[in-house]
Amino acid sequence: MSPKITTELLKQLRQVMKSPKYVQEPVQAYIVPSGDAHQSEYIAPCDCRRAFISGFDGSAGTAIVTDQHAAMWTDGRYFLQAAHQMDNNWTLMKMGLKDTPTQEDWLVSVLPEGSKVGVDPFIIPADQWKRMSKALRSAGHDLVPVKENLIDTIWTDCPQRPCKPLITLDLSYTGVSWKDKIAALRSKMAERKVVWFVITALDEVAWLFNLRGSDVEYNPVFFAYAVIGMNTIRLFIDGDRMMDPAVREHLQLDSTLEPEFKIQVVPYGSVLSELQAVGAGLSPKDKVWLSDKASYALTEAIPKAYRYLTPYTPICIAKAVKNASETEGMRRAHIKDAVALCEVFHWLEKEVPKGTVTEIIAADKAEEFRSQQKDFVELSFATISSTGPNGAIIHYKPVPETNRTLSVNEIYLLDSGAQYKDGTTDVTRTMHFGTPSAYEKECFTYVLKGHIAVSAAIFPNGTKGHLLDSFARSALWDCGLDYLHGTGHGVGSFLNVHEGPCGISYKTFADEPLEAGMIVSDEPGYYEDGSFGIRIENVVLVIPAETKYNFKNRGSLTFEPLTLVPIQTKMIDVNLLTQKECNWVDDYHQKCREVVGAELERQGRHEALQWLIRETEPLLRTQ
Amino acid sequence: MSPKITTELLKQLRQVMKSPKYVQEPVQAYIVPSGDAHQSEYIAPCDCRRAFISGFDGSAGTAIVTDQHAAMWTDGRYFLQAAHQMDNNWTLMKMGLKDTPTQEDWLVSVLPEGSKVGVDPFIIPADQWKRMSKALRSAGHDLVPVKENLIDTIWTDCPQRPCKPLITLDLSYTGVSWKDKIAALRSKMAERKVVWFVITALDEVAWLFNLRGSDVEYNPVFFAYAVIGMNTIRLFIDGDRMMDPAVREHLQLDSTLEPEFKIQVVPYGSVLSELQAVGAGLSPKDKVWLSDKASYALTEAIPKAYRYLTPYTPICIAKAVKNASETEGMRRAHIKDAVALCEVFHWLEKEVPKGTVTEIIAADKAEEFRSQQKDFVELSFATISSTGPNGAIIHYKPVPETNRTLSVNEIYLLDSGAQYKDGTTDVTRTMHFGTPSAYEKECFTYVLKGHIAVSAAIFPNGTKGHLLDSFARSALWDCGLDYLHGTGHGVGSFLNVHEGPCGISYKTFADEPLEAGMIVSDEPGYYEDGSFGIRIENVVLVIPAETKYNFKNRGSLTFEPLTLVPIQTKMIDVNLLTQKECNWVDDYHQKCREVVGAELERQGRHEALQWLIRETEPLLRTQ
Repeated sequence: MSPKITTELLKQLRQVMKSPKYVQEPVQAYIVPSGDAHQSEYIAPCDCRRAFISGFDGSAGTAIVTDQHAAMWTDGRYFLQAAHQMDNNWTLMKMGLKDTPTQEDWLVSVLPEGSKVGVDPFIIPADQWKRMSKALRSAGHDLVPVKENLIDTIWTDCPQRPCKPLITLDLSYTGVSWKDKIAALRSKMAERKVVWFVITALDEVAWLFNLRGSDVEYNPVFFAYAVIGMNTIRLFIDGDRMMDPAVREHLQLDSTLEPEFKIQVVPYGSVLSELQAVGAGLSPKDKVWLSDKASYALTEAIPKAYRYLTPYTPICIAKAVKNASETEGMRRAHIKDAVALCEVFHWLEKEVPKGTVTEIIAADKAEEFRSQQKDFVELSFATISSTGPNGAIIHYKPVPETNRTLSVNEIYLLDSGAQYKDGTTDVTRTMHFGTPSAYEKECFTYVLKGHIAVSAAIFPNGTKGHLLDSFARSALWDCGLDYLHGTGHGVGSFLNVHEGPCGISYKTFADEPLEAGMIVSDEPGYYEDGSFGIRIENVVLVIPAETKYNFKNRGSLTFEPLTLVPIQTKMIDVNLLTQKECNWVDDYHQKCREVVGAELERQGRHEALQWLIRETEPLLRTQ
Repeated sequence: MSPKITTELLKQLRQVMKSPKYVQEPVQAYIVPSGDAHQSEYIAPCDCRRAFISGFDGSAGTAIVTDQHAAMWTDGRYFLQAAHQMDNNWTLMKMGLKDTPTQEDWLVSVLPEGSKVGVDPFIIPADQWKRMSKALRSAGHDLVPVKENLIDTIWTDCPQRPCKPLITLDLSYTGVSWKDKIAALRSKMAERKVVWFVITALDEVAWLFNLRGSDVEYNPVFFAYAVIGMNTIRLFIDGDRMMDPAVREHLQLDSTLEPEFKIQVVPYGSVLSELQAVGAGLSPKDKVWLSDKASYALTEAIPKAYRYLTPYTPICIAKAVKNASETEGMRRAHIKDAVALCEVFHWLEKEVPKGTVTEIIAADKAEEFRSQQKDFVELSFATISSTGPNGAIIHYKPVPETNRTLSVNEIYLLDSGAQYKDGTTDVTRTMHFGTPSAYEKECFTYVLKGHIAVSAAIFPNGTKGHLLDSFARSALWDCGLDYLHGTGHGVGSFLNVHEGPCGISYKTFADEPLEAGMIVSDEPGYYEDGSFGIRIENVVLVIPAETKYNFKNRGSLTFEPLTLVPIQTKMIDVNLLTQKECNWVDDYHQKCREVVGAELERQGRHEALQWLIRETEPLLRTQ
């Protein structure tokens, strides 16, 4: 992987930063955030502006370019990748390390007095704008909105914004109709005395209308906004997608409907002017509900006194708690996914010793097996197929320049998942196809202990996920090891593989308490730079727990693994496990064998079934 | 304990809330926070306004009185106590429970349109003012400063503000001179380009000048403010305390000094006008550093553009990391404290079966034994001496109405501590003087497991204390038990027994990362309402840990118990402990025996020594 040469691009950007054609006054710094106008984590090619200007294409990062400097902030998952992808024009700012300045502090330290810092007001979330604007102002600088995106002005071959057909989901998948979802939303609005609700997140629009798209790779979403009033539904969406008879029927566009469920279809690009019209027509006591992560541009369309901002919208919270249809769908998707992975690992076991399997071939094979499963749509993220030292690059994606051949001498890490019409999967297994070293087994076993500690944790109702993060690290910490990423993220139901408002992380963020029906990942790891990476990831469902004393009827929760793929026992140092942990592994493997075994049998995949049976043998206890 | 009858008082308060003599416009609600003008947790009798108006005298709580309602917010430690102490005029708002409204939400729900909510601007911290003011404004109400404290206007027999003599501490106690502390502070100010620093917290003033006082019971502080410039030191303090020759010499008030260390002594009451003068004299780029918890009144004295607010001041952070002299002092104090407690428990063991020992007698006995130790000053908080059901009232203090006799049939919980000139102690032990039930032992053992899990935890440098909180709960959670308080708080060095900026709590607060030299408590518990309370508390010092792999030279930390008092083995169900936990208990008891045993021997306390030796026998393993 050679870095992108950005000297000429940066020169051009610095020119437009001074050009009266694009900026009212010259800006001394320009911020290029990661997201798009919907603050999406995964973005369409036309929105990959930060990758275009810097070369770094990880999923999280913010670039800031000044007259003299170019700096990139990213987190521990991407330190190695960013260092590889960026040339010497760029300074890497390692977030989470003690000595790394914040963007604001860095700007204040490098800018000349009274500087202007520009940013696209559609891309920056309102809460970030507020924080950054305040910090800059208190140091005598100004954050200014630059209407035309400056990267777009120098990006001559920028791709078109996608506009692909939609998929409609019926009740058997969603459990609740879009009309019932809107009715529930309106009752939340009434509770808070809100008259308009603005939906800017793509997955929230998709969830609300029981529609899916494919405008963004891996995320089954489509470019749209929605604005919901007590008697009005406006859907901002482009293209002839609304001409599709299935979509028209699903949304009842041609039916005689109660007026409050009549959907007005409006062009995508008119959202700002329509919202400004909403803002201008408000009565004194009216409130408009927006996420505090909505773009600065849309937030400003509503006069400040009328805004009702929350970190999470009621849709985000409702979407996180899966209903029975969604949970059953997720179970089915994970069984199919496990079938595919049994095939992959069985195939790898045979092929790796021949020395012909590369990371890319292995990733393709995993996609091939998944695509054979019913209702498969696409992958849920770029497969992380990494062996040896590549495993230590936490969000590695194999490309021809880095593509390494799997061998019986190196650890192999496969973090992959798919979108099925009934659910989203995300699973990581770490395998050795030869004989692992004692140190590799030791590290793997600590990671496994952490995985089990979270998965088997029992905690009272109302507990937030961040309180469970240290359980995943305790065994590693005892030996002086750690990993620089969170332990888990929310997972959508045939939606984004990363979703809020819950998670398991050492980072203090405004996570909502875990509730029965929420689905998160449990994925501790350990990474030895230059040598190997280990991660064990299951998707787990929050379920009620049964305890001896039941928290005085407050009730309690625990997790049920939805992922049912064997954890390689060859990598386990059984002497480091407690009796309880051994039992957990054996019980888990027993369940994999029963549930996935039955499906392998049904699909006539006999060799993979034999592999599964072998890989789910009970642990050999030494005592 | 019978509740305070507040009908007449509330009537009077509601009258002054409308009286033009005190308020410019009538206020529809009046907030009575817990603190004083220094946002102290422990306050002088003249500042106990919330207790005066409501009867509830716990250390944390906020009262709000409207024309129709009177409501009290407090946390889990005080639910039972507040319910006992308040009459039917009051509604108890149980903070931390899901359905309890915030003060702002409650006000919005009960106030008529366009209400004014009054508060004393000297008592409310600026950050609380901001949050509450914003929430009220967005609902059409106004938070207004009421200069004259309305409680004081109806409190006819309000005691005088204390003004007691000061104690000077020499280098052998403090390790660093006040001049060096001010020089260090000025270099922090220079780093942040700050020209003035305003100290409002009483313990920060005391720490900075190496002085102690006794204006507030249990906290060796004195009423004062300080304002530090790059060449100016202003100490706002009343009375003839500055006439004391020892104090004059300590502060070098009569010496020829470098001008930047010359202390100007100014009357306490003039702080607002002096600060307003500072505010008026600032040049465009000047900044004034204040805690964001400083009072609204003082914060407003500095125009907004000049304020530099942080949640913790550099003094708060420097004070938390104890130097070698302070650490050694804390060790000495804890050994003396252990001697006193060995005497107490030995005495209780003899006396309790006679049926003549009440909670108050036991508390007095503990104070008596402590007062025999060198450099004893006073208690560090009101002794919690509670038996049977009283133990479930988390911050119980025995009074004649509730005073229960200790017996061989009930659990006894003693949470107590002292101020010695060389350190502050805080220790809880839970004892049974007869035969505990299997359930009591089970609960005790889970609490002990939690205590050990925190005390023995190893974690990388940079970890915040809140990430350790769940370790203390895990064993309880597994059986469906929990406790409604944090696990630990920072402890001062001959200063406040509760201090920031670190702690161990499930509550997400802006805690600073733990550092070697910080001192916190480790005090999980379990409370069975109406039956018993269990808590095991040590004060522990953060020390570097040695681990096998040392976090790639990032380094790691663990705790060393400073408290060295036996944990009653009779209460332990050894079958519930792991081998590692058994070893921890035995090692801890071995250290108690060696260190405290030597001091008991030196002090000729032979009976207590025999008790210590018996109580520190290794656990009898059943396997």
